[in-house]
Amino acid sequence: MRILGIDPGLQNLGWGVIRVEGSRISHIGNGVCHGTGPDLPRRLLALHDQLSEVVAQYEPDAAAVEHVFVNRDGAGTLKLGQARGVALLVPARFGLEVGEYAPNKIKKTVVGVGHADKVQVQHMVKLQLPGVKLAGPDSADALAVALCHAHYMASSLAEAIRRQA
Amino acid sequence: MRILGIDPGLQNLGWGVIRVEGSRISHIGNGVCHGTGPDLPRRLLALHDQLSEVVAQYEPDAAAVEHVFVNRDGAGTLKLGQARGVALLVPARFGLEVGEYAPNKIKKTVVGVGHADKVQVQHMVKLQLPGVKLAGPDSADALAVALCHAHYMASSLAEAIRRQA
Repeated sequence: MRILGIDPGLQNLGWGVIRVEGSRISHIGNGVCHGTGPDLPRRLLALHDQLSEVVAQYEPDAAAVEHVFVNRDGAGTLKLGQARGVALLVPARFGLEVGEYAPNKIKKTVVGVGHADKVQVQHMVKLQLPGVKLAGPDSADALAVALCHAHYMASSLAEAIRRQA
Repeated sequence: MRILGIDPGLQNLGWGVIRVEGSRISHIGNGVCHGTGPDLPRRLLALHDQLSEVVAQYEPDAAAVEHVFVNRDGAGTLKLGQARGVALLVPARFGLEVGEYAPNKIKKTVVGVGHADKVQVQHMVKLQLPGVKLAGPDSADALAVALCHAHYMASSLAEAIRRQA
């Protein structure tokens, strides 16, 4: 199965697609969507259209989106929330289930510690997806979200099998 | 021309459509979209689909969305931001220009004072759109956004004519 990971942002929205076959995980694609336009509605439209193209092209079976930090800067939180709304909407429009993970959960799963920095995340993403060429730090984060989702899907599957046995 | 006003919200997203012919303004329709679903992505999808139906049915020529309050409750701001992202995206997907107005600007334009309460807004909306049946307070706010946009569009048109003369 294919998993699409998304790191939401209004200016740069990272995406990454991985393939999971049993315990084998491989890289399919990654990139960054840019929310460019003369005003906010058209910036959101640009994100929507670019991300929709990614889903149409790579045909993922599931998606996962990073939870954004809620900080004291209300205007920044609102801006990010608007981009995140589009990031959650697009896979839902394609009928995909969308998982949500907090940043420290993603880091803990991919790097081993919840307080890992961007360089460590990129390093572990490259280790787990040999030969990957990263479009940027945002797409590395997006691939980390996809890896995290793969891990939790495998865990819950194993749990379901254990319960049936 | 027809103007669609939107009062964004995740649970209740108010909408209202008015027709402007010269100085004559009349009510076309109003209602509330409900963000119901088993998870956030599908709640946003429900809003997207219901609002898209409104645009397809009423064929507005322009749209306007209320700015949301940014408060200290970061989680609430994020939630509202996500709904607002969809509220801005949908008219943009239909190729409409989308205006944005702060709540006090809307109140000042429609009621005459920036600190008017919901009851005053509903009262003035009913006065300016005789015979209107309001689906709820959120759709009254949405009609107020549409009325505000009509006012500012008329003002900027008059300004443009003055400059040409």
